Amino acid sequence: MNKQVILTSRPEGIPQAANFAIVESPMPMVDAGHLLVRNLYLSVEPAMRGWVNAAANYADPVPLGAVMRSFATGRVTESRHPRFKPGDFVTGLFGWQEYAVVSADSVIRTITDRDVPLSTSLGVLGLTGLTAYVGLLEIGRPRPGDTVVVSTAAGSVGSIVGQIAKMNGCRTVGIAGGAAKVALCVDEFRFDAAVDYKSGDFDDRLTAACPAGVDVYFDNTAGAISDSVIRRLNIGARVVICGTVSVATWDPPPLGPRIERTLLTKRASMQGFLATDYEHKRPEALRFLSRCIREGSLRYREDILEGLLEAPGAIALLYRGDNNGKLLVRLRETEI
Amino acid sequence: MNKQVILTSRPEGIPQAANFAIVESPMPMVDAGHLLVRNLYLSVEPAMRGWVNAAANYADPVPLGAVMRSFATGRVTESRHPRFKPGDFVTGLFGWQEYAVVSADSVIRTITDRDVPLSTSLGVLGLTGLTAYVGLLEIGRPRPGDTVVVSTAAGSVGSIVGQIAKMNGCRTVGIAGGAAKVALCVDEFRFDAAVDYKSGDFDDRLTAACPAGVDVYFDNTAGAISDSVIRRLNIGARVVICGTVSVATWDPPPLGPRIERTLLTKRASMQGFLATDYEHKRPEALRFLSRCIREGSLRYREDILEGLLEAPGAIALLYRGDNNGKLLVRLRETEI
Repeated sequence: MNKQVILTSRPEGIPQAANFAIVESPMPMVDAGHLLVRNLYLSVEPAMRGWVNAAANYADPVPLGAVMRSFATGRVTESRHPRFKPGDFVTGLFGWQEYAVVSADSVIRTITDRDVPLSTSLGVLGLTGLTAYVGLLEIGRPRPGDTVVVSTAAGSVGSIVGQIAKMNGCRTVGIAGGAAKVALCVDEFRFDAAVDYKSGDFDDRLTAACPAGVDVYFDNTAGAISDSVIRRLNIGARVVICGTVSVATWDPPPLGPRIERTLLTKRASMQGFLATDYEHKRPEALRFLSRCIREGSLRYREDILEGLLEAPGAIALLYRGDNNGKLLVRLRETEI
Repeated sequence: MNKQVILTSRPEGIPQAANFAIVESPMPMVDAGHLLVRNLYLSVEPAMRGWVNAAANYADPVPLGAVMRSFATGRVTESRHPRFKPGDFVTGLFGWQEYAVVSADSVIRTITDRDVPLSTSLGVLGLTGLTAYVGLLEIGRPRPGDTVVVSTAAGSVGSIVGQIAKMNGCRTVGIAGGAAKVALCVDEFRFDAAVDYKSGDFDDRLTAACPAGVDVYFDNTAGAISDSVIRRLNIGARVVICGTVSVATWDPPPLGPRIERTLLTKRASMQGFLATDYEHKRPEALRFLSRCIREGSLRYREDILEGLLEAPGAIALLYRGDNNGKLLVRLRETEI
């Protein structure tokens, strides 16, 4: 039997455990051109909120009654495609389930670099790393000496953005919630400064941390945190919209200060992006990021939940900000 | 004696006639390397609101007691610089005054194309045309088949944007206030459709005018008009922030629906610009626009006030939207 996490109702706001059920179903048949994959790690990410909304936004909604969409990494147990053989490690959109039958086309890559942990294929060497790499370098376009501010800076994407910006000669300022995460930004991820958005004098602290204003803002939060950063933009600044994690519901959109005048007087830009539009950059990003990991010049954290039962509540956990680093679900004890 | 318009107080919101005074002063001396220019046309433009604010935004504020900053076109009456001779027509930041002593460096160009009206040097062949040209082509980057929406579409910049977009194979939709301006958009400036933002069913009309959504939004207004357009952005859309004429005061910024989620899910961009950052594009824009005028393929309107006494109230007139086309002040009856 196969165990699967099924979407049973549409959430209002952040998806909760109650929006899902775990069901057992017969092991699926493997059609020609397909593979059977035993999932070993499941990814949990902010984008999942969008995937379960009835309104299509950047992806078709996951249908009610269907397996929850998810990136996953697993091992091929049966192959009916010549490019794959049993034992291969593969990563792709395999869903929150123990076993997945997938077409060869849906495999993002076969993982051959086994000198780094398999779990990195969903984090720093997966969509998380690609997101940080293309968002910062393609949209943010940092120049040496720029001040780069990152929100959710202790998170999986933000921590990588800060480190790549630092490698590019920028002053890096992280925004995170609480003293522990602020310390993590500076001590572990080597931000030049970090500011606690939960502190009463956040605005003053942000000013002190950005004495030369802000040239690039890599935004994972939206909302009031962003308002403070946007007031400090320099002429020609670039705002990269990567996520909106601080805003619980967008239907209707909450109100905030209009930004047109700031964008005009500062000749600034604000641009949203999805890493999945940059598949053509994945090989370059992967080469760069895996070299950094092997050299020890890039640090990352993972937060691993044990077992499929943890998956349904994991999105809410992520949005509460209780995790440190890339949030994953491991499907069994494994030495892999 | 020289007559000058002096800034006497800082406006709250839109500058009014009462913020200025007209004074007489002795004719200025012409130092070495300088010219004496008799102004013939003075420009009136939305950016003047920013120039008189105490808070520096994109230009240093005009000091209290100083001549109001303005683009102007005039005739050299005395030259102490070898590049100019009496009788030359020149355009530059000469201020709201009858006579100006200016350095040679401050002349934007000598006007040699006398087969088009001299007034065009401040409009379609001045900063107005450059604004439309670089804002649309450099920031908006229209592709054939795109739907391009323009606010204040019957205005001096908007009407040129619409026509250039049309030449680039786009569907053009103008937004303007009132039936007369809407008719002007379609009949005179050849927009494919035009929508009255003052109509009760503006939102529905905009939807009907943009059946394939919006790919480029050239925004001169900000505010509620923009909110309606932004809800209709397509994936990869570009929003060009050129002006914020619908919002009377930005201190503090008014509230509006947050746009981060739209920019993210649509992978859209929003960018402010000032044409003065694109001086390097001026020769190209001038070649293109003057060729269009000679061919008769580009239509423009001018609204000319007579005499320096009209200047102080002209900014408020512009913001009321009472003018049609580029607003100018003519300083004397002239056959030029």
